[in-house]
Amino acid sequence: MDVNDIRDIVEDLNFLIAKKDDSMIRNILVGLHPADVAEIIHYLSHEDKHYIFSLLDADFASEVISELDDVSLDKILDDLDENRITEIVDEMDSDDATDLVAELPEEVAHKVLQRIDKEDSEEVLELIRHEEDTAGGIMAKEYIAVNQNMTVEQVIQQIRSQAEEVEDLYNIWVVDEDQKLVGTVTLKDLILADSKTVISEIMDSDVISVTPDVDQEEVARITQKYDLVSLPVVDDEGHLVGRITFDDVADVAEEEASEDFQRMAGIADEEEFRETSILKISRARLPWLMVAFAGEMVSAFTLSRFEASLSQIIAAAFFIPIIMAMGGNAGIQSSTIMVRGMATGEIDLFEIRRRLVREIFVSMLNGFLCGLFLFGVVSIFLGQPRFGLLLGSVLFVVIMSATFVGAFIPVMLRKINIDPAISTGPFITTWNDVVGLLIYLGLITIFLPYLS
Amino acid sequence: MDVNDIRDIVEDLNFLIAKKDDSMIRNILVGLHPADVAEIIHYLSHEDKHYIFSLLDADFASEVISELDDVSLDKILDDLDENRITEIVDEMDSDDATDLVAELPEEVAHKVLQRIDKEDSEEVLELIRHEEDTAGGIMAKEYIAVNQNMTVEQVIQQIRSQAEEVEDLYNIWVVDEDQKLVGTVTLKDLILADSKTVISEIMDSDVISVTPDVDQEEVARITQKYDLVSLPVVDDEGHLVGRITFDDVADVAEEEASEDFQRMAGIADEEEFRETSILKISRARLPWLMVAFAGEMVSAFTLSRFEASLSQIIAAAFFIPIIMAMGGNAGIQSSTIMVRGMATGEIDLFEIRRRLVREIFVSMLNGFLCGLFLFGVVSIFLGQPRFGLLLGSVLFVVIMSATFVGAFIPVMLRKINIDPAISTGPFITTWNDVVGLLIYLGLITIFLPYLS
Repeated sequence: MDVNDIRDIVEDLNFLIAKKDDSMIRNILVGLHPADVAEIIHYLSHEDKHYIFSLLDADFASEVISELDDVSLDKILDDLDENRITEIVDEMDSDDATDLVAELPEEVAHKVLQRIDKEDSEEVLELIRHEEDTAGGIMAKEYIAVNQNMTVEQVIQQIRSQAEEVEDLYNIWVVDEDQKLVGTVTLKDLILADSKTVISEIMDSDVISVTPDVDQEEVARITQKYDLVSLPVVDDEGHLVGRITFDDVADVAEEEASEDFQRMAGIADEEEFRETSILKISRARLPWLMVAFAGEMVSAFTLSRFEASLSQIIAAAFFIPIIMAMGGNAGIQSSTIMVRGMATGEIDLFEIRRRLVREIFVSMLNGFLCGLFLFGVVSIFLGQPRFGLLLGSVLFVVIMSATFVGAFIPVMLRKINIDPAISTGPFITTWNDVVGLLIYLGLITIFLPYLS
Repeated sequence: MDVNDIRDIVEDLNFLIAKKDDSMIRNILVGLHPADVAEIIHYLSHEDKHYIFSLLDADFASEVISELDDVSLDKILDDLDENRITEIVDEMDSDDATDLVAELPEEVAHKVLQRIDKEDSEEVLELIRHEEDTAGGIMAKEYIAVNQNMTVEQVIQQIRSQAEEVEDLYNIWVVDEDQKLVGTVTLKDLILADSKTVISEIMDSDVISVTPDVDQEEVARITQKYDLVSLPVVDDEGHLVGRITFDDVADVAEEEASEDFQRMAGIADEEEFRETSILKISRARLPWLMVAFAGEMVSAFTLSRFEASLSQIIAAAFFIPIIMAMGGNAGIQSSTIMVRGMATGEIDLFEIRRRLVREIFVSMLNGFLCGLFLFGVVSIFLGQPRFGLLLGSVLFVVIMSATFVGAFIPVMLRKINIDPAISTGPFITTWNDVVGLLIYLGLITIFLPYLS
């Protein structure tokens, strides 16, 4: 269903909401995918969001609420009473339930956890202990683990008994007597096996797993590298504790990429794409603007120190923008390659050295070509070969330094465990501006006597 | 297996390669995951890549080759003879086989296609017709389609007969007599169903599918929105023609995000993170540097037009960097939000208007705050309130214009079907530099008489 279909339904709903035709509204919504209903709710006004949501039965509401964008979720949660929340949480998978409970005010969360099924609340309490962006923070407790001595027939019996709890099932985990993970069986292998076969005979004992503390970015890298539809999570002793499925991983990958995009653009807190509060958007962006502000005040100060040179040769000021912009762009190019390459894992520890060496050569080549070009333009069109030579040389040095700094800073940041993406935006650009201007004006001042 | 384990194995292999201990090398490799072997090959020298690869049997080699990075793949393909390629292609899934054949020189591809299994070559020829970045370009012909009148028992028989061909299976598609897709059944439902049940009774007929021409970015959006483990591809009449699985989609999402990162950073051709050719890296980056170069020559020209003003008040030059940088950063912030939001689908057609309006308000707020700040600094620390007022006002206008332009240009580009990501790097920055300087110097010149 695309955005135009969604909008058509939203229009119909607006009409039906005005008429308070609840049964008709229910008829429309019940035929839709929860993800589409979440999309529809996004387009409704604040009161209508709440109204429509109140018409959904708890089971469907639980599926819709997991799909809502954060802005709509906040608004709907504000208006929901504890009974309704309890009903909904009761229907959710443990990972989604945990995420929702984490959004609730503490007293509400407490009451909800007391009222839901005891087993469910224990699961939520176990999951909520983990950091949000780790394997433990994204795993669910809904999985099927069978003893290695069970026959295929018995395993199918167990799947049947857990079928409602574990909705999406791609493979089952095999454990030993101590509940330690020893293998995995795909449903395909299960279907093809003889019903009397012992499960350990058909299991794949080469099973890839992670511990709960592994970073979610690493989880995404592992599942992507090995094409895993689901990944078991085990504790330090190898006991099975959770399951991460491909759809959670896809969300993680998207979230991490968006975070990197925003950090590279100098947006501090994660800014919701659908954020409606101007104050919140402003607050997410101002800090890095202020960093750039401070940095460029240093640029202004630098320039003021060279006032004498500038007034002697005012044309030097004309080329400030090109020096700054070329350094800035070259720096962003190399830092983006490093930041993104490290994020996807394509540039790893051992690649980094190779890559940095390569950046030096690339920066020399591109710096030389751009410098040559500037020399040519200034010599030929302005008829000032000496000034052109100076400008070209400066551009060469500035592009070289900016490219290398752009590649190097993300690596350093990663070494001290700061997200490299943070560096790429205003930080490197501002740094390169100041250094670039220093180089430029320093050389101009030194060679001033030879220019005329 | 992490990068350190990989490096340990690479060291062992280097030792064994020197000793030409083929059987030991084979022993090591055969116990590894194909993705790890691909990783290992990446770290070997050119000749060793080829040597190690030649030791793998065709089946294993076919799995490894699909996981190789592009740089290693190129090198290995260069040295491979047609017989070996034919052997390998014969073992591959249709989508991977198609990708590989597409990399081959035309005469080699032709010969390989003549030699492999006729059915396989027909599949490859069918798949290769589709654009690389569409559903048709990433789908595979390995899927299981069953007639809606078959019983569960018969379906399981069919799965058994196709088990080797379709390695990873999560659900089966149900078709009618005309081979039109009418439903889907998960393996879980199949396991739980009675063997005499007719498949149409347990199928989910609400099946989401795409046509082969749908853009791969849209495919990723759909599977992610509806959490689909696999997505059927149907032709215009609804006949099943292919299958896209979650792992292909994950690759697409990563590829598209990387492409956007690079485009936003002003990198033209897609630059391989592991690219080893300095010339290729340089060539990917130079075009946008040249665009920035041309733009900043306009800046230089603009400044030269205002030479008179600049020589009268040389301090005006000191603030060129801050005006440029603040405009640049504010523009990158808003354009990144638009580009990434549109790429993930969170900012859609109807969101765009809201978002643009919001950007205007945000730009006013942030522009005002930054302007006020600059006014304060110049008034208090430099003791020049009039000049400070002028600078602050200019910064306000420049940030406003840059933010709006940054948000607006990606939207316009998307309207005319150009990837919005392309705009965000050098393009918007350079544009904002020129416009920012014009505003700055224009206002300086107008208010010059009142400054002293």
